[in-house]
Amino acid sequence: MSKTIDFYFDYSSPFGYLASERIELLAAKYERAVIWRPILLGAVFKVTGQAPLTQMPLKGNYSMRDFARSAKEHKITYKHPANFPIGTVAACRATLWMRNHESESVSKYTTEFVHAVFRAYYVAGKDISDTAVVTQVASDIGIDCEQLSSAMNDQAVKAALRKEVENAIELEVFGSPMMIVDNEPFWGNDRIEQLDRWLAQGGW
Amino acid sequence: MSKTIDFYFDYSSPFGYLASERIELLAAKYERAVIWRPILLGAVFKVTGQAPLTQMPLKGNYSMRDFARSAKEHKITYKHPANFPIGTVAACRATLWMRNHESESVSKYTTEFVHAVFRAYYVAGKDISDTAVVTQVASDIGIDCEQLSSAMNDQAVKAALRKEVENAIELEVFGSPMMIVDNEPFWGNDRIEQLDRWLAQGGW
Repeated sequence: MSKTIDFYFDYSSPFGYLASERIELLAAKYERAVIWRPILLGAVFKVTGQAPLTQMPLKGNYSMRDFARSAKEHKITYKHPANFPIGTVAACRATLWMRNHESESVSKYTTEFVHAVFRAYYVAGKDISDTAVVTQVASDIGIDCEQLSSAMNDQAVKAALRKEVENAIELEVFGSPMMIVDNEPFWGNDRIEQLDRWLAQGGW
Repeated sequence: MSKTIDFYFDYSSPFGYLASERIELLAAKYERAVIWRPILLGAVFKVTGQAPLTQMPLKGNYSMRDFARSAKEHKITYKHPANFPIGTVAACRATLWMRNHESESVSKYTTEFVHAVFRAYYVAGKDISDTAVVTQVASDIGIDCEQLSSAMNDQAVKAALRKEVENAIELEVFGSPMMIVDNEPFWGNDRIEQLDRWLAQGGW
């Protein structure tokens, strides 16, 4: 598959989670590959002046209803984590290391790992800001944890995440999820239907 | 009709316009009355720290694409106004005066006036921040303009708008459109489908 859907997300984003559970079906429909692009919303929010939804004045209560209703709409299990929002730098580094790995024996786990991390947080209620939890999630799906642990402390991996976030900001990625196809950006779980029509029609 | 859909909006909100073109069909389906509740997003943004979409860092270009795509999705004519965003205090006062008027010979125009103002701005490209334009729009649909002109300068009408905005903020209305049914809030043109399901199912 030569064409892609670039899927920008933060693990700390409920709508990133919901969309992650739906994007592969769409990608398969149009024979596209999903490129998982973990970013840090904290860095993005420094540019936009935004804040996590639940911490925004007037918007906190609404956000919680909206998460629950949107999950129900798509029949996706969602339990709002007790610890929210959280820092996701360890999980992001692990994801990037895997995705960019030269050996297919490691990179092949990327998609499964993304889902496993999201579900550990939004279904099992695990604190994925904890490096040990991230390592456990990886171990559970068969990833070599010694390699992963050293990767999360590797300067090159840290630099790769910084670069991924910088590139995202350069592309005006301002939230999660943001899906980019052929340079056209779609923001939000609630724009997957528009993305579907866009791909069906080949643009406008 | 005893049950209502409270429709909070700012005339300067493109998604408020799109939703205004769709909400009556939904209201009719569930035999509810639409209560038009014009608010000033500027006052709301002072509380939330937000800004108009097109002025937010990273989000400006995206917003323009999103307006156009969303209008196309619903087959609604949308021409992004040259002068955007604008102050809508005159149009809001006129709407409130009409809606709250004790005489049905005036209040009956409210719905038609809301649509006429929105379309003057997003279809005909008229500057509805101008009181004279608002008066002309009203005149075109048969409203007595002398009455309207004095109403827009009436202290009671000004106070009514301030009160309407205060009440909205108290209800945690943080954007446009916000639709509230039986105390359940739905934010955004893109939540009309969820609102539809909510009304169909009588809640969760």
